[in-house]
Amino acid sequence: MAVSLDRERFVTAMQTQADIGGTDAGGLHRLALSDEDKQVRDWFQEQMDAAGLETRVDEFGNMFGRRPGTDPEAGTILVGSHLDSQPYGGIYDGALGVVAALELVRTLNDEDIETAHPIEVVNWTNEEGSRFQPAMQGSGVWAGAHDIETEWAKTDDDGVSVKSELERIGYRGDAPAEPTHDYDAALELHVEQGPYLEEKGKDVGVVTGIVGISWGEVTFYGESNHSGATPMHRRSDAMVAAADFITQVRRIATTSGDDTVGTAGYVDVQPNSINIIPEEVTVTWGFRDPDATVIADARDRTLEEAAAAAEREGIEWEFEDRMDVDPVHFSDRCVDAVQGAADSQELDSMRIFSGGVHDIQHATDLMDTGMVFAVSEDGKSHTESEFTSWEDCYSAASTLGNAVFDLSTVE
Amino acid sequence: MAVSLDRERFVTAMQTQADIGGTDAGGLHRLALSDEDKQVRDWFQEQMDAAGLETRVDEFGNMFGRRPGTDPEAGTILVGSHLDSQPYGGIYDGALGVVAALELVRTLNDEDIETAHPIEVVNWTNEEGSRFQPAMQGSGVWAGAHDIETEWAKTDDDGVSVKSELERIGYRGDAPAEPTHDYDAALELHVEQGPYLEEKGKDVGVVTGIVGISWGEVTFYGESNHSGATPMHRRSDAMVAAADFITQVRRIATTSGDDTVGTAGYVDVQPNSINIIPEEVTVTWGFRDPDATVIADARDRTLEEAAAAAEREGIEWEFEDRMDVDPVHFSDRCVDAVQGAADSQELDSMRIFSGGVHDIQHATDLMDTGMVFAVSEDGKSHTESEFTSWEDCYSAASTLGNAVFDLSTVE
Repeated sequence: MAVSLDRERFVTAMQTQADIGGTDAGGLHRLALSDEDKQVRDWFQEQMDAAGLETRVDEFGNMFGRRPGTDPEAGTILVGSHLDSQPYGGIYDGALGVVAALELVRTLNDEDIETAHPIEVVNWTNEEGSRFQPAMQGSGVWAGAHDIETEWAKTDDDGVSVKSELERIGYRGDAPAEPTHDYDAALELHVEQGPYLEEKGKDVGVVTGIVGISWGEVTFYGESNHSGATPMHRRSDAMVAAADFITQVRRIATTSGDDTVGTAGYVDVQPNSINIIPEEVTVTWGFRDPDATVIADARDRTLEEAAAAAEREGIEWEFEDRMDVDPVHFSDRCVDAVQGAADSQELDSMRIFSGGVHDIQHATDLMDTGMVFAVSEDGKSHTESEFTSWEDCYSAASTLGNAVFDLSTVE
Repeated sequence: MAVSLDRERFVTAMQTQADIGGTDAGGLHRLALSDEDKQVRDWFQEQMDAAGLETRVDEFGNMFGRRPGTDPEAGTILVGSHLDSQPYGGIYDGALGVVAALELVRTLNDEDIETAHPIEVVNWTNEEGSRFQPAMQGSGVWAGAHDIETEWAKTDDDGVSVKSELERIGYRGDAPAEPTHDYDAALELHVEQGPYLEEKGKDVGVVTGIVGISWGEVTFYGESNHSGATPMHRRSDAMVAAADFITQVRRIATTSGDDTVGTAGYVDVQPNSINIIPEEVTVTWGFRDPDATVIADARDRTLEEAAAAAEREGIEWEFEDRMDVDPVHFSDRCVDAVQGAADSQELDSMRIFSGGVHDIQHATDLMDTGMVFAVSEDGKSHTESEFTSWEDCYSAASTLGNAVFDLSTVE
């Protein structure tokens, strides 16, 4: 048995949410806990109410809508993503995953389908991490990865706290920000944010896990001096060492695992004048790979190369790790459910590892988890020009819906 | 015949000026046309008056003190430098050249020595170019390299103009900012700002010219994208190209002329985030060499390397020249006078090319020119820790004084 989502209603819902904080260039500017976020939350609450869901908002603003199951022993299947966006981001991103979850419960209602397991749709607070850090804040608090008081106290660039914004927009709820039911599994639909599905001509991605991350920064300490009067043999130029290092970050990324990516995205030069030899340069590294060993190895090589670059220039250096995230491997049960759903819809799918992090990461220690990816045209993400055709949106939503349906009916 | 400067009076004058805008760390913070600059100008005016000089201040604030010669046909010998400093700079820099010129006329007065040529001491306005650009502004206006109205209108970071500051501190004078006499030659004493004299164990430098400069900037245009989800083969990373380019700037500098220096001192990365592939990176180049051909060649190689770096990364790039200054070669007559003065004082000297630019550059097309360098300990310049021993200051001042004396007596 399969569920058949209402394509027109689904696309209309996507368009409706896209208008809330929509930009002239066809993107979305809907920062976490902004007025636009309040508006889209109000809309989402109305939709959940209209669908007869039993709703709650937790103390961190995470929004849940519950559709009961028939088996009192069966754990809840959680499905959703996030409605906030990056500054001038795209209209699909996480919103697609929330709208698809909503369309699933509407379809089940229309068809009078009962499921053994309860199904909960969810909109997580502040996935993007652009206005308030860290990313995946709401799901992290809910799953117990972060302390709620600490996260409430986080402020944006204007010094405004998460807690005060939650209260201002009326989304500091009464429910505890923690799993208040017995959860069995969770699925999330998100756009790929990379080009693989399109490159391979696929309709949908069966995500098998999320890459691990090593982030850090290296600082080189040279000697600032007059760029005209200091002969080359007397120089200790922090930028020359940094350039050397940046070149090696690229090389390490391309000579590690098949799927390793590596970036030196941030460079700060002091004093940064055309006429002065750079004294202090900080460069970040960031590596991602599905395999924790590959990431650890890339980090080690990076530090060796930083040491070598500093030694060649005869200068001091130091480093700091900024983030280490282990790769996530989704449960076979959920991956199989997604694969089966794609197959049953006769969609051309591929197994894929996620290069970006997602809310579902936090649920992984608490329940079985899985993900569906929609095609991202040209791999563009976090930009107004992000694009997924309605055909590809629907394919991914159908895959999600049928996978959730499968998990919620099979004992 | 030689003149013998009064060492104690000379050192006392150096210490007195160093107290005006002196910093706790023993440096000097005396920005052009600041209150401190007014104070040191007032002091300098008093000293010139006390020495019986015929003084004038021109419309751009350049200060002159004239000691008449005996031969009405003989052109003026101009000697001096500048009293302004970099932010938190050193106490020697150009001030040494002004105080040495003052001490020369005092000594000539004490000894009742008449010279055939008039001698003029000078303090140029805004040599440093840190508060108002460009550097060497006063000497440039005086020599006709810049239009006075344009330079008057230049503003500092607070929007305050040169003209209003000249008026505020009372140093917009009545004299035309142009050569109002017949000038025969000019000499300038300045600290070396590099390590060569100290490295070779010399007492004083006989400067034979000033290096030429090529300054410019290259911008690489990559494609900004998610650093996790974009595979390596799909990247167009502007920072990878820029790192490549910076490495080549170092290589070109070390494989051009014997004395070529080259620096990539400024780097701007957009959007400059650990999590985003760099989209746009601007890097400056700066080359200096005594030989114009070597500079032109270094610039050409730099642009070839920029093109190659951009092509390897598959991205666009563009460049802009920011400054091109031809090398200056001082006249044999002035270089010989400086060399003769060093020899007559039994000082161990060496011929040296200046790596920094100096006010005298602007006088070069109008008259014979030459320079004396004082030792810069460890080559430090434009920093509070700049240091020249009083012994080395006096050696350089004696060399300057005797060279000027030589030029002003020989027909």
